Amino acid sequence: MASLQDIGVAAAINILSAFAFLVAFAIFRLQPLNDRVYFPKWYLKGIRSSPTHSGTFVSKFVNLDFRMYIRFLNWMPAALRMPELELIEHAGLDSAVYIRIYLLGLKIFVPLTVLAFAVLVPVNWTGKALENINDLTFSGIDKLSISNIPSGSERFWAHLVVAYVISFWTCYVLYKEYKRIASMRLHFLASVNRRPDQFTVLVRNVPPDPDESVSEHVEHFFCVNHPNHYLMHQVVYNANKLEKLVTKKKSLRNKLKYYQNKYERNPTKKPTTKTGFWGLWGTSVDAIDFYTDEIAKLCKEEISERERVISDPKAVMPAAFVSFRTRWGAAVCAQTQQSSNPTVWLTDWACEPRDVYWTNLAIPFVELTIRRLIMAVALFFLIFFFIIPIALVQSIANLEGIEKVLPFLKSLMKTAEDLYIVDDKPQKVVKSVIQGFLPGIALKIFLIILPTILMTMSKIEGFTSLSSLERRSAGKYHLFILINVFLGSIITGTAFQQLHSFINQSATEIPKTVGVSIPMKATFFITYIMVDGWAGIAAEILRLVPLIVFHLKNAFLVKTDQDREEAMDPGSLYFASSEPRIQLYFLLGLVYSVVTPILLPFIIVFFGLAYMVFRHQIINVYDQKYESAAAFWPDVHRRLVTGLIISQLLLMGLLSTKDAEQSTPLLIALPVLTIWFHMFCKGRFESAFVKFPLQNAMVKDTLERATEPNLNLKSYLQDAYIHPVFKDDEFERRAIDEEENNPLVPTKRSSRRSSKYGSDISSETGV
Amino acid sequence: MASLQDIGVAAAINILSAFAFLVAFAIFRLQPLNDRVYFPKWYLKGIRSSPTHSGTFVSKFVNLDFRMYIRFLNWMPAALRMPELELIEHAGLDSAVYIRIYLLGLKIFVPLTVLAFAVLVPVNWTGKALENINDLTFSGIDKLSISNIPSGSERFWAHLVVAYVISFWTCYVLYKEYKRIASMRLHFLASVNRRPDQFTVLVRNVPPDPDESVSEHVEHFFCVNHPNHYLMHQVVYNANKLEKLVTKKKSLRNKLKYYQNKYERNPTKKPTTKTGFWGLWGTSVDAIDFYTDEIAKLCKEEISERERVISDPKAVMPAAFVSFRTRWGAAVCAQTQQSSNPTVWLTDWACEPRDVYWTNLAIPFVELTIRRLIMAVALFFLIFFFIIPIALVQSIANLEGIEKVLPFLKSLMKTAEDLYIVDDKPQKVVKSVIQGFLPGIALKIFLIILPTILMTMSKIEGFTSLSSLERRSAGKYHLFILINVFLGSIITGTAFQQLHSFINQSATEIPKTVGVSIPMKATFFITYIMVDGWAGIAAEILRLVPLIVFHLKNAFLVKTDQDREEAMDPGSLYFASSEPRIQLYFLLGLVYSVVTPILLPFIIVFFGLAYMVFRHQIINVYDQKYESAAAFWPDVHRRLVTGLIISQLLLMGLLSTKDAEQSTPLLIALPVLTIWFHMFCKGRFESAFVKFPLQNAMVKDTLERATEPNLNLKSYLQDAYIHPVFKDDEFERRAIDEEENNPLVPTKRSSRRSSKYGSDISSETGV
Repeated sequence: MASLQDIGVAAAINILSAFAFLVAFAIFRLQPLNDRVYFPKWYLKGIRSSPTHSGTFVSKFVNLDFRMYIRFLNWMPAALRMPELELIEHAGLDSAVYIRIYLLGLKIFVPLTVLAFAVLVPVNWTGKALENINDLTFSGIDKLSISNIPSGSERFWAHLVVAYVISFWTCYVLYKEYKRIASMRLHFLASVNRRPDQFTVLVRNVPPDPDESVSEHVEHFFCVNHPNHYLMHQVVYNANKLEKLVTKKKSLRNKLKYYQNKYERNPTKKPTTKTGFWGLWGTSVDAIDFYTDEIAKLCKEEISERERVISDPKAVMPAAFVSFRTRWGAAVCAQTQQSSNPTVWLTDWACEPRDVYWTNLAIPFVELTIRRLIMAVALFFLIFFFIIPIALVQSIANLEGIEKVLPFLKSLMKTAEDLYIVDDKPQKVVKSVIQGFLPGIALKIFLIILPTILMTMSKIEGFTSLSSLERRSAGKYHLFILINVFLGSIITGTAFQQLHSFINQSATEIPKTVGVSIPMKATFFITYIMVDGWAGIAAEILRLVPLIVFHLKNAFLVKTDQDREEAMDPGSLYFASSEPRIQLYFLLGLVYSVVTPILLPFIIVFFGLAYMVFRHQIINVYDQKYESAAAFWPDVHRRLVTGLIISQLLLMGLLSTKDAEQSTPLLIALPVLTIWFHMFCKGRFESAFVKFPLQNAMVKDTLERATEPNLNLKSYLQDAYIHPVFKDDEFERRAIDEEENNPLVPTKRSSRRSSKYGSDISSETGV
Repeated sequence: MASLQDIGVAAAINILSAFAFLVAFAIFRLQPLNDRVYFPKWYLKGIRSSPTHSGTFVSKFVNLDFRMYIRFLNWMPAALRMPELELIEHAGLDSAVYIRIYLLGLKIFVPLTVLAFAVLVPVNWTGKALENINDLTFSGIDKLSISNIPSGSERFWAHLVVAYVISFWTCYVLYKEYKRIASMRLHFLASVNRRPDQFTVLVRNVPPDPDESVSEHVEHFFCVNHPNHYLMHQVVYNANKLEKLVTKKKSLRNKLKYYQNKYERNPTKKPTTKTGFWGLWGTSVDAIDFYTDEIAKLCKEEISERERVISDPKAVMPAAFVSFRTRWGAAVCAQTQQSSNPTVWLTDWACEPRDVYWTNLAIPFVELTIRRLIMAVALFFLIFFFIIPIALVQSIANLEGIEKVLPFLKSLMKTAEDLYIVDDKPQKVVKSVIQGFLPGIALKIFLIILPTILMTMSKIEGFTSLSSLERRSAGKYHLFILINVFLGSIITGTAFQQLHSFINQSATEIPKTVGVSIPMKATFFITYIMVDGWAGIAAEILRLVPLIVFHLKNAFLVKTDQDREEAMDPGSLYFASSEPRIQLYFLLGLVYSVVTPILLPFIIVFFGLAYMVFRHQIINVYDQKYESAAAFWPDVHRRLVTGLIISQLLLMGLLSTKDAEQSTPLLIALPVLTIWFHMFCKGRFESAFVKFPLQNAMVKDTLERATEPNLNLKSYLQDAYIHPVFKDDEFERRAIDEEENNPLVPTKRSSRRSSKYGSDISSETGV
């Protein structure tokens, strides 16, 4: 076990590297050349213009104003300065609520740290259990932990009381936060301007009708069953093939641009390319001509496909976006059952147009349940058996294995051997490097692509909006982290071995087994927090990958300002993988707050640093793809409560191994009360995240009728829910004009789209 | 273990006693004097008139037509003859669906019995494992069970395949049944006549308003938020005290009537009573005068209380029945959230007026969740620790203990001693009888009052309709039976001991422990089925308790025909305790179908007999208190699926102790698939039992508008949801007149009420 000194060294290293990232960021962000990497949000909002346009030639690329370097940390107060209301206005409620998760961590753990250091650290320090054992080498950290209390001691009462205080404090803070966020959400929904999704309901599983087309059937059904409220509808086309063509065209246009730039810079040599795969083989041809032809061909194909989709009745999916005259009508339709068969005419709130995941709109009910079953089984195997394919890869990831699979590597090795003919040492070096490196790489690659795998699984499950896909994936990833990172670190062995030992252990034995190893793993988790939490967060702000990609694109693809805008990759908060990671820190904090309180300050530093960094990022960098109005909070709350219950059970297990079984009846009340607290919160707040109350709808409707009696809602909604590939310049332009002429119409979304999405789309379709 | 012969003897005894009950029933039912006990349903419907009115004097009491005795079993075909549609018309959907549970048992188990006897019995019989063990006495039944297969035999494949067939067949039958009952329910709801609950929504937790009364607040809220649909509302009064007065008055009136009858029969002696508790002590007074005075006093009190409730704003509870112009409007309001605070303005379908449980209408949300938590904990203790208070009672239930608690018993014993002064033997006999008898009595009394305890717990939980109270209690009772009867019989020991051993056993160990004892308990359960199932069901049809009560009332209280009608106690299906008992038979059948198929025929006889008996009872006897349109079916389905999963897990445990562990991976797929099947059915059908689709509402509204354009809905709904104690003769009379004048208005409910409930109420209030 590591001593306090070892941890001090590790802390020093990590603080230094975090500091290095921060300094690098402070220098990079001041260079005008990087301005679009570190402030893309402002460009997208149209507020900031490129600093490279003015000044001397050198100052276009390097910032020579040395006074700015002195104040290199001034982004931190700047990030904290923006008030929350403005932040919501600027970055959306999703982002504002997301960083409140870090703030919640501070709210929970700062008072708990004070309490634990005031009560538990002295109690543990004077426990003297470890001093009596002479032949055991123990570190300072263990002296501060519960391990230092002798078995059956009366001192465990202190831990018991603190455990109660922790649970009640956590629940109190969680309750306050849930309440606050529910009211923020309702206030946000009440104050946002008119948006198409307020009037629109997504109808799925429209039953087939022998006499009518889907469109007619939808119209008749809603005319009959919502006679005074139905306004119009928009059927959903199966445009997946068309989308592929559009994507392919875009990549071809990038290549064309690359060769055109190359030719311009060096007009003496016409660039050539090969016609085969990735331009690696085939006959050589003139690159510019080749790609111009290809694009022209694709354009024709795209036009014919577009015609086919619109005219072919088979391309219409049995789903539609139905719009109503009033928000009240839409709220009613979204919350009620339409048909006596609950698997057809499924209605639900339409999400924002940009949040729709178009591919999944037409999955029938039975298929949906089968898909979910298969994915549940797949998730089980992924979590418990993911190590098997990786071990397989690792077993062939030695040189002999690779040579068998890829024979051409053998000749490569031969060449290498020929180069170093003196002796076979170099080959051995290469060999051992590859063999030492590859197995780790296989695991690392798996962990990197894991969120993508989970997202694909969620897509197969058939959710229809990006936001729900992210929420679902986050749930899966949380399970994976809980089992493979948290439990996997505490009990060594693969998840499957744990599973096997758990199902062969009694229900009371499991918390004991896990609980007893917890104090021993404190130093490991402290190191983990410093590496993943401190240095990882500091690396986040540096944005190394987007920085490099931007400069590469800038060098090869950018010609006009619009190209430069496209080359920007503001990124966004990737809820599906980042939120479960925060949950791990909450879990660690709750578990160790009683056992080894020394871990808490490290968690607090993580939450503080992350809060600052992400607040800066959402102000200056990230551009969210959609706005779900904090619909993810019930998930966050549930996982936090889960963490609390896990910590209570593990403490119970730990104490019962310490001859303090008499505490069990007192401790068992905690999970029961916590579960009740969860159900209470669910009943009290969850519907604010699922339903839209009729009262609020009515208020907004009435207000709108009073201020705009002549509103033409139909034309406003006409093209809102059209598959993005059908939207062309003309429509975009028209919509923006309309919105600009109408002062009450949302300006935020449209302006954002006009700058980024609008240009995207126009460049895609406007050949 | 019992041999085949022992079981034969037990079967003979039980068949004989069942037969004796049936013969007694056949004779009793033909006596005109008992006509109202065995055919009350027909009296309540007004179709049958008393046979005691006509004929000779003797034939008024004894049936002398001997031909009828010969055909004494002809009630059986008669019970089966009524077609299902007529049955629904006659007894309501609840009853018709309830007896389909027995039919479902036949549908599941008849084919399974054929299969098991064709495949498993020969396989088991030729297994010869028990023949090899010489010193073990084994019976014929064990030879037919899985115990006869040697460990690790290949024959277990047969059991594995049969287990799959059983699961799939059960799921298939369950799916068909769920589908059928969902469509029956929808058809029933679509075809019933106009009823107040179709237009009405129960609103609870009306928030307090400083400026408005509850009534005004409700009216304003719904006028604003459902402007085109709101019609009227009816606030709920806290009439619990008034109800008590009414009940007390009714019991006094009964006493008065008793003394009046006594006086009429013997006019020479004026009956007297004592003024003290239960007429046991106090001064002697003239009984008729005394009770007349008391009733007069109570009447005054009742009138002043009635005034108080109506005029006092504090007697108005924050709840109301809100009625809408159309069924569509009510469906919308019931299914949507009204306010942004989801704990106020809670709306739900109003149940039928007679189904309302008035006392619970005003419980606030927070209190509700706390009550549920407390009841959940209480249920846990009730199930696992119920034996402790009973053991306590039993420990004082010996004579010494009783003498300490109730000293006057001592003198009683003394007197007994004095009477038998010869020696102290008789006292010992009395003593040993009491001591041998009381402990058993304590448990028996507990089991008899258990459904009442569970119902009280459900009432504390705060459900607002009798039907939901019954459903909730059934869930609790099912849990109790599952743990204390099923598991308690398999593993001897109290539930708490089981719990203790289970939480100290591993997850894989539990099914093994239970599974391995299952074959040994087959004979016990066969006897149980015969005693509880066969003889118990046959006793049900005899209605011994209502028979005796009716004749006692007839002798002392009845003067007029109306009195006689009141003395009838038709009873009703008590879903809360009878449904969980059926579930035990399903569970036994599913568990033993693979293990000991010989048990199946006994189950089939139970289901067949019970189907016939209960079909007869719902046609001739029971009068349901409410109609929930089979809202209980999702619960029945869920419990059946639970039973199926338990049987699969136990089989897995049993096989893994038989050296057939290789079957575990094959068997583990079964519970996974079954859980998926359950979720599929839930998604597919459950909403038909919870929601009312808008389409159906619209169809009925449109039809009604076309047939009755001038309907005055307001006057129809005016008094529908008034607390029963406020309804007086005048209203009742008016309502019935109105309904009779209007041909489309329901006749069934009103005629039923006019005969039974109407007379009840008029006699209560019309002093």
